Amino acid sequence: MEKAILVFQTDFTYKEGAVCAMYGVVKSVDRSLEIIDGSHELPQYDTWSASYRLYQSMKFWPKGTVFVSVVDPGVGTSRKASVAKTKDGYFIVSPDNGSLTHVKNNVGIESIREIDETINRLKGKDTEGVSIFHGRDLFGYCAARLASGIISFEEVGPEYSVDEIICHKIEKPTIENGVIKGIFEINDPNFGNLWTNVETKMFFENDFNYGDDLQVTIYHDDIIVYDKKVRFDKSFGMVEKGEDIIYNNELMKIAMATSMDSFEKKNNLGFGSNWKVEFKKYE
Amino acid sequence: MEKAILVFQTDFTYKEGAVCAMYGVVKSVDRSLEIIDGSHELPQYDTWSASYRLYQSMKFWPKGTVFVSVVDPGVGTSRKASVAKTKDGYFIVSPDNGSLTHVKNNVGIESIREIDETINRLKGKDTEGVSIFHGRDLFGYCAARLASGIISFEEVGPEYSVDEIICHKIEKPTIENGVIKGIFEINDPNFGNLWTNVETKMFFENDFNYGDDLQVTIYHDDIIVYDKKVRFDKSFGMVEKGEDIIYNNELMKIAMATSMDSFEKKNNLGFGSNWKVEFKKYE
Amino acid sequence: MEKAILVFQTDFTYKEGAVCAMYGVVKSVDRSLEIIDGSHELPQYDTWSASYRLYQSMKFWPKGTVFVSVVDPGVGTSRKASVAKTKDGYFIVSPDNGSLTHVKNNVGIESIREIDETINRLKGKDTEGVSIFHGRDLFGYCAARLASGIISFEEVGPEYSVDEIICHKIEKPTIENGVIKGIFEINDPNFGNLWTNVETKMFFENDFNYGDDLQVTIYHDDIIVYDKKVRFDKSFGMVEKGEDIIYNNELMKIAMATSMDSFEKKNNLGFGSNWKVEFKKYE
Repeated sequence: MEKAILVFQTDFTYKEGAVCAMYGVVKSVDRSLEIIDGSHELPQYDTWSASYRLYQSMKFWPKGTVFVSVVDPGVGTSRKASVAKTKDGYFIVSPDNGSLTHVKNNVGIESIREIDETINRLKGKDTEGVSIFHGRDLFGYCAARLASGIISFEEVGPEYSVDEIICHKIEKPTIENGVIKGIFEINDPNFGNLWTNVETKMFFENDFNYGDDLQVTIYHDDIIVYDKKVRFDKSFGMVEKGEDIIYNNELMKIAMATSMDSFEKKNNLGFGSNWKVEFKKYE
Repeated sequence: MEKAILVFQTDFTYKEGAVCAMYGVVKSVDRSLEIIDGSHELPQYDTWSASYRLYQSMKFWPKGTVFVSVVDPGVGTSRKASVAKTKDGYFIVSPDNGSLTHVKNNVGIESIREIDETINRLKGKDTEGVSIFHGRDLFGYCAARLASGIISFEEVGPEYSVDEIICHKIEKPTIENGVIKGIFEINDPNFGNLWTNVETKMFFENDFNYGDDLQVTIYHDDIIVYDKKVRFDKSFGMVEKGEDIIYNNELMKIAMATSMDSFEKKNNLGFGSNWKVEFKKYE
Repeated sequence: MEKAILVFQTDFTYKEGAVCAMYGVVKSVDRSLEIIDGSHELPQYDTWSASYRLYQSMKFWPKGTVFVSVVDPGVGTSRKASVAKTKDGYFIVSPDNGSLTHVKNNVGIESIREIDETINRLKGKDTEGVSIFHGRDLFGYCAARLASGIISFEEVGPEYSVDEIICHKIEKPTIENGVIKGIFEINDPNFGNLWTNVETKMFFENDFNYGDDLQVTIYHDDIIVYDKKVRFDKSFGMVEKGEDIIYNNELMKIAMATSMDSFEKKNNLGFGSNWKVEFKKYE
């Protein structure tokens, strides 16, 4: 059987040797394993972003791919170190600290197991007393053993209830009286776009169509911080440089951008449960 | 037949999940394909830099390597999505938006084809309505099919004339009355060097030799912004820390640096057609 | 025989095409070689950091792995280009400029050879006159030949004495009258931790135990810049956000951190021989 690919995401950066040590452990478990960088530039301690990034790319990978996510502010405390199996056939090796939220909500988790440290922790490298860096000694090591077929999912450790998984609370978007309400669920920190949790098909169902002007109201902690008429169209390339646009993003959800500028920074916006956004027809 | 390596360059960064999703598509087309990061930190929307970076590293790769370049400010508009075959046997999958300039001018393009979206676009991942992120759905997917041998170059889509390729305008360097004139064609944004389009052999033909002092005049939009005596030598290690130097760069072209400092930032310089530079003997 | 993995670390960044060209050379030597990014974001010209990063991750890799380290401010000058064989069975291809210090001191170097440029330098790509970028033309090329088995370690070039290796001077930590003295040997530039050269077992031998409060005094150039009571514990997760902590780091050495903040930046500290730190029991 072909061995699973390992896709890693962390908040370690490549500025020091942590990623390199972690990958060395993987290659020492099984030289033939394939390692892919998902991202090592996730925002520090930000389990919400970790959660979204897993969801964003997972379905484009071959079934069986093992994702390793290490954004782990609680390392060395009582949070669980876990391996989840998704309903569509992927594995996620991660601290159970909110990093599984979006996959659980949008895809579903079939079952989850806590890593048994007595079996699936690195040994023999004089790191037995280390209480930090589970990316190297626990998550990376255990993921390599799983991808390699040395252990089965059942041999990760004891199963626990999917209902116990720690999740960020995210309200679902709503349509009422022609107004669609959601939140900014994540940013694109590079281009400065903000992505909502509103599926684009909700727009079409509500008779918002490409080319329409919409009234957009953004609330931060229930205070209005943006209230403008904005065009809804297919791509940021369709408005002038510097102009705001509502568009259908790469996951078929509604997003907002400024053409060749940062919508997020220009308007001093953010994402999370306290960043609400409303769309209605402009008249 | 051995499958081609895929080398990717974009302006996406690794700060979010776009690269990861794009690579997932490649691996879903053919698990055995080899993916290399060229760079994901190209300056945003900068098709000139994209063009130069392709040229800079291409010849060092095995023949047949497939380069995927996605700096694509016009995504979702009428710019062509293309695959070019170079005269020396490489492939470039890229928007036809200026990104092919340096390879066309310095190496030559044998033929170019527009990607047929009806055949060579990702299907079945609920992204059919997406008008952005062609890196994932079009360039990455099509490149993977080409590298894997699933499609031939001819099956990419309809051929069009090499003369129609969109290019940045770049004047060639000249020698006249002992003065060599060129432009700063690119920077090294890390170390702060600036590279001209003047081949080092032009210096030797004009009797400028290692150890010579030269008068350097730099013009920005035809206004003099730098006018100094500078030593021409083999390596920045040959002058004192903080001193400027003219040297033969890694592509056998003339470049300028400040030893252990940024020549570009220290002097507030840049690159492009409006950054002209002249060299003559200092007397 | 299985070919060695190549692990690269440089101060090039991914902002331009240098890494890509270097990797192209490797793949042109032997298409089947496996390339891993150690880091391309080492601090510029910082051979001390290069040295520490090699030491930090090396032992986690399979024996025989070839590390290529290119932090090379003296490129084109008389510094030696070398390949070292460590006492525990790894290879390091690097300028001999201090980058070998920590591996030599902590692991040991069995023998070292200067790269013979007449044999082990890239040819045929019109780069013969280039005096810079040995990462591509010399280190990368020679390392690929070594990893591929095209040359043996003996065929790298002439051996020279291990005693001639250029090293940074680092004093060993001491225990005297219940006071442990060392230096901050490196930082974690991402999370802002500082790591000492004091092995954690020295703490236990001196009866400093997890949960103890210690008096920490930090000297910069022999001037006191920090003098506080700090808790010694297993993980930064064990103190409140914003609180300083002494902990056992991932290499079983003593380190200092601020929980979810940067200890280094908050206190304006650094690392190197002139950053001394003392620990004693708080009473």
